[in-house]
Parts: sequence; C-alpha cells; structure tokens
Amino acid sequence: MPANRQTFLATGLGIGLLTNLENTLTAYEPTVGFDPTNLTKANVPTPALLLDLDLFESNVQKMAEHCRRSNRGFRPHAKTHKCPEIAKRQMAAGALGICAATVPEAEALVAAGITGVLLTSPIVEPTKIARMVSLIQQGRGVMLSVGHPREVELLSAAASTAGINVDVLVDVDIGDRRTGIMPGQPAVELAQFIAKHKRLHIRGVQSYAGHASHVVGFEARDKVSREVMGKSAATRDLLNKAGFDAGILSGGSTGTYNIDSTVQGVTELQVGSYVFMDIDYRRIGGQTSGENYADFQHSLTVLATVVNATHADRVSVDAGTKALDTTTAWKPEAKGWPGLTYNRGGDEFGMLTLEPGAKLPQIGDRIEFLVPHCDPNVNLYDRIYATRGEKVEAIWPIAARRG
Amino acid sequence: MPANRQTFLATGLGIGLLTNLENTLTAYEPTVGFDPTNLTKANVPTPALLLDLDLFESNVQKMAEHCRRSNRGFRPHAKTHKCPEIAKRQMAAGALGICAATVPEAEALVAAGITGVLLTSPIVEPTKIARMVSLIQQGRGVMLSVGHPREVELLSAAASTAGINVDVLVDVDIGDRRTGIMPGQPAVELAQFIAKHKRLHIRGVQSYAGHASHVVGFEARDKVSREVMGKSAATRDLLNKAGFDAGILSGGSTGTYNIDSTVQGVTELQVGSYVFMDIDYRRIGGQTSGENYADFQHSLTVLATVVNATHADRVSVDAGTKALDTTTAWKPEAKGWPGLTYNRGGDEFGMLTLEPGAKLPQIGDRIEFLVPHCDPNVNLYDRIYATRGEKVEAIWPIAARRG
Repeated sequence: MPANRQTFLATGLGIGLLTNLENTLTAYEPTVGFDPTNLTKANVPTPALLLDLDLFESNVQKMAEHCRRSNRGFRPHAKTHKCPEIAKRQMAAGALGICAATVPEAEALVAAGITGVLLTSPIVEPTKIARMVSLIQQGRGVMLSVGHPREVELLSAAASTAGINVDVLVDVDIGDRRTGIMPGQPAVELAQFIAKHKRLHIRGVQSYAGHASHVVGFEARDKVSREVMGKSAATRDLLNKAGFDAGILSGGSTGTYNIDSTVQGVTELQVGSYVFMDIDYRRIGGQTSGENYADFQHSLTVLATVVNATHADRVSVDAGTKALDTTTAWKPEAKGWPGLTYNRGGDEFGMLTLEPGAKLPQIGDRIEFLVPHCDPNVNLYDRIYATRGEKVEAIWPIAARRG
Repeated sequence: MPANRQTFLATGLGIGLLTNLENTLTAYEPTVGFDPTNLTKANVPTPALLLDLDLFESNVQKMAEHCRRSNRGFRPHAKTHKCPEIAKRQMAAGALGICAATVPEAEALVAAGITGVLLTSPIVEPTKIARMVSLIQQGRGVMLSVGHPREVELLSAAASTAGINVDVLVDVDIGDRRTGIMPGQPAVELAQFIAKHKRLHIRGVQSYAGHASHVVGFEARDKVSREVMGKSAATRDLLNKAGFDAGILSGGSTGTYNIDSTVQGVTELQVGSYVFMDIDYRRIGGQTSGENYADFQHSLTVLATVVNATHADRVSVDAGTKALDTTTAWKPEAKGWPGLTYNRGGDEFGMLTLEPGAKLPQIGDRIEFLVPHCDPNVNLYDRIYATRGEKVEAIWPIAARRG
C-alpha cells in the first residue's frame, strides 16, 4: 500500500466513515486515472451521486431529536438509501431498528450488523421466505409484516420447518390499497388466523399512507394523516382488546413525521427521505417554513459534467434518464445555476436550456442537481460519494441495491 | 462442488452460455433458498429481468443477415444491454465491434475481449480520457468520437503523454442537438483542427438521430432518416474531398436499420434495441408489418409476483418504479393476461387493475411484463436471467452497468 493511501486511511475522518472503502474501490473503480487519496467534487467520475455529510448529519440528528422529544421511537426506512453505512448512522442516532422494503435490503442490513430490521413489504415466494427465516435465525430481532392469509401460511410453514419463532406486525391498509389487510374487523380476523400458527407472534401493527405523505400544505396533510393513522391506532386497540399483545404501531413518513408523532398510539416512525430530501418533498410545504418544506436539508445531489456546448441556447450534460430519476412531474434543478432548465435528452444526456439573461455553462463545467425523487434516484447508483465541502471523505456502497 | 451442480455446468446448454455463472452466483445471490441447478421462471426471485433466448437469438441473427444482404457492417450499441455476454453473441454474428455510451461500458466490453469498441459519447474529464487511453493501449481497436475542439485538445494531450495514436470519428449533429459538431463546414473545420494534433487520426464520421428512430409510420420515418443521414453522408464526402481518409460512416438505430442501410455512404449501423425490442419501438410501425413494428421480437420481460390481493378490483405486484422503467408515456404490459392494466404504485409496487370481464390474478401468481423502454429498464438490474422455455439457462451479469 502506498504511503499516501495509508495516511489517508489513517487520518481522523470520523469513525466508520472509511468502512469498506478498500473493498469499494476494489469492486467498483478502475485504477487508471483514479486516486482515492485525492477525490474531490472536481474529479469524481460523473455522473455521480453525492452526499453532503454536513447536511446529512444535521438531518439525522434533527429527526432523532424530534423523536426523543416526542417520546416516540423511529425505525427509518432503508428503501430510501439502500446503504448500510447510512443505516449505521441512523442506529447510532437512536433508531430502534431499520425498515427494509425488499429481502436483499434486509440481508444487506443484517450483514452490516443492524438489529431490529423490519421487512415492511409482503413476500409470498418460498425462497424469499426461506431467506428471511435464515436472517431471523441470526438472532438480531428481525420482524416481518403480514397482510394476507397466504403470507401467514407460507411463513408459518417455513418457521415450523426451521423450528424458530417469528415476530410479525399486522400490515393494515389505511388507504394506499397496495399492501395489507383492511383496518378493523378484517385485521382482527387476520390476527386470529395468525394466532392459529404457533410459530408466529403478533407484536403490533404497521401502516404506511403514501397518499398522506405528499399532501401539499401542512394543515391539509395534518388532516389526512391524522385520520388515516387514527384508523391504524383504532385497529391496534381492537387487537389488544381481543387479547393480543400488539405493542408496536409503526408508520409515518418524512412528510408526516411531526403529525404522526402526535397521533395517540403511534409508537415509532418509518421515516425515510429525511436523510436526503428531494424536490417532491420540498413542494409539500412545512408547518412553519411556508411553501417550501425546509425541516430537512437537501443533502443528496447528482453531479454531472457539461459534455457538449455546440449550441448558443443549450448545453448537454452526461446525466440522462439512467442517472437522474425523472419519474415524477418535477425536474432536476441545477444548484447554483439560476435560469437553467433541465430537460430530458434521452437515456444518456440531459439538456440545459436558458432563461433570458441566464449564464450558459461551458464545456467541462461540473453541475450538481437536486433530485426530484430520492429513492428511485439512489437506486440508479452503486455507491454514494460522501463529501465534506469539496472533499470526498468516503465512498459508501449502495449495498442493498440488488436487481 | 455438489454433483448436481457439476452436472448442470457440464451439460450441453450452448457454448459460452454459462460463462461467469460461478462468479455471478458468488457475487450476486444469497445461498439460502437458491438452487442454481434448478432455476426456472417459477422460482427466480422477483422482480427479475428475463431474456427469452430463442427470441433473442432470432433477433441477433435477423439483424446480422439484414446487414450482410445490404453489404453494410454493424457495430451494435451496448448502451441497450450493458452486457458483455450479449456483446459476444453480436460479435459472433458478424459485428464489426460494439458501441459504448460510457467509459465503464467500454471498459467492461474490452475486459470481455470485445474488439472494435467505439465510444459514441463525448468525454471531457481528464480521468475518463486517461481510462480510454489505457483501453487503446491494449490494442483491441478502440475508437472515440469527438465533436468539440475541447475534446480534441484533451484527448491529444493524453495521447501524446502516453505516446499512442488514437483513431477518432467526427461526431456530426444531424438534429438531436445534444452531441457533436454541426454538419458541413463546421465539421470540416473540426476535422482540420483534429489534423493539427498528430496523435489523432480521423477514421470517419458518426451520427445518431434519436429524433428519427421513433417516428411513427414507416414512410414518415424513411423521409426523416434519409434526410438527416444524408447530411452526415454529405459531410463525410466533404471530409474526403478535403483530403481526409474518412472511411467510416456509422449511425442508425433499430427503428431505421432498413432505411439507413439503403442510404448511400452509410458503412455501419449502430443498432441497439433490436436484441430486446420494447413497447416504445413496437408502436412505430414496420415497413411490412403495419401499425405494430414486428421486425424483431420482444425477448425482454420483467417477471413480477402478485404480493397483495386484498381488493376485488386490483392486485399489487412487486415491481414498481425501481423495477419497471416508466419514463416513457407507455405502460408495461402483462404478457398473457388480457384486460389487466399496469399502474404505478410507487417505487416498490405496481397495481394491476381490471377491464370488465378480465380475470384477476391470485396472490403468488407470477406475471411477465413487456417493458416500455428497454435501455433504462435494463439499467435497473445487475443481471439478466437467460431462459429457454421455462428453464433458466444462464445468468448474465449486466457488467457494464456502473453508477
């Protein structure tokens, strides 16, 4: 190992920041033209996913403090970041565990030593259930959510075969109509069905209201989320009256964290996007910050390079639909470049057009973009460059991304 | 190695089909609940990207035969598949080389032994140029395209430092306005500027007309593509009259392959999507096949599992925006399930709703979807399950995907 690399690895850049850096570089980066001791925003290969560590750390702390003050737990959702290094920092800030949307996410989290992983999505493939049983056998407090009798049967059979007990939450559908059982009596009946399977133990209820998280305007959002989370809380009460020990009520989102933490009965928040923020969340407005939701800061950007400047009215950057998620109605925004509009230029390129009087970038200029929707944007990448100012402090694998 | 695995690896499943299978499984797959000797469409973990080998091989051969009959070369574009195993099969069918849209693609192709790689995108980052120089030094006929004086200066400096010669194509902008130099005199002036840099050697011209490839209706598309490729051919003639040895005219697309192969001067086709096909191409109509372009067959699908069936009017599948690209106006189509409509259900799920009289899938059912746009859809995955009938014959890494 060259001396400068040793120095780099040994300097005090923060506990754990360099975890897996060696492996990461080995796995992902060419050696030509790539000096890990001197990575900056000026020389990381583009398109690149960047995380501003100061803003990220501020977001992590702010949510943790909110939950502490509110006497609620939080189990942040890894579907947003798919990054065990980020999960570790959420745990260090006091999280009860980490939510996973997929089995590969759960596997990557458990492999990184995360405890209290909750799989929030339904699974009915026998091989995936076997993989979850294998994780549970590691004794790190892994839980599943179930919302259909078929899931119960399959999970019970696998648990019996393995001779293990499985903690489950009843997934209650409070309006998204995509996973879970209906609240009230149907949920009680599902719980009674679960109770017939001796290896399965009900620990509580989970609900996600995607339709509440992005309601524009705090008052309107407060009304919607309070109503739907109330359904989940009432269902939890019904379960407890029926003799179950449904201690957990897990739900909520970055858009409703300060609403759901005042709903009676909610025990923990499944917040995700707060670590990064995005344009889709910014526009929903905050309780005190007006039209732009500003409770958390935009720590996530995509860095791109201007690769064509043939025309007077536009330039091309090397970030198209493969590098910048454009599945929402919002456009990526060029940070620090007022008057530039990002337009899709196909899979490989973005086109920046100019408002009157705006300054056109030059070929070779590097531009950071705020992303419209963080989750699917992160999913396009294998690593995050974690930056402090201009310097890259670490490269974090998006290890839970596996497709 | 267990005996059944040995047997699997030894059976005659086609030369090269199992290349890297061992490595792939080690790198990507959990061992629990995953038996590589018995992978079928019924048990690969979903969401999964599937390639029907019979249809794929038919597409590869049909394009190769068309080019042979037309006395044109073809240099298929790897931006579509990012998969060296597919590139090898295109080479075996007679391709002159393979196009790459990114430096990581070029690196993965060269590492797989592919010759004649052409980087079709502009690069202006010194580290990326150094990586391309390193590839050229391997002597496998790597070429770059250049469309701006700044690219020329940077490439020339790197080539001089390394002491190597670099073959380049002049990238001519025939209407997309995203890369390249304008046709005619501006291209000649760029060529003259290139000629001042002794390490750079002009081999020809490249043009891509994304705006021509998807024109609906064969006659309309024929008119547009003929006109714009004519600009490129005329520019190539100008270069040759000016004393350059511009032998190559590279361009075209899956939508215009049978048009551009009749344009005088076009020497090779940069066809990409033909190996997979997608809904976006199907709707453009064919020369002889009417409204549905049927020259190539839909070999690419996404396999998903029904994971929720709580409601009478819909079911949820485990393929949302992270698994099924929905950046075009078209929706994924459930193969063999008439009357089902795919709707976005967020990042993790898709919602299937029913037309009157259609049959609702059951929880656990596995459904294959035709994809709206193949390139960005493949980019969401790390591997392709190559199938023959119901059986998975091989797992091919999407090794050139790196973000």
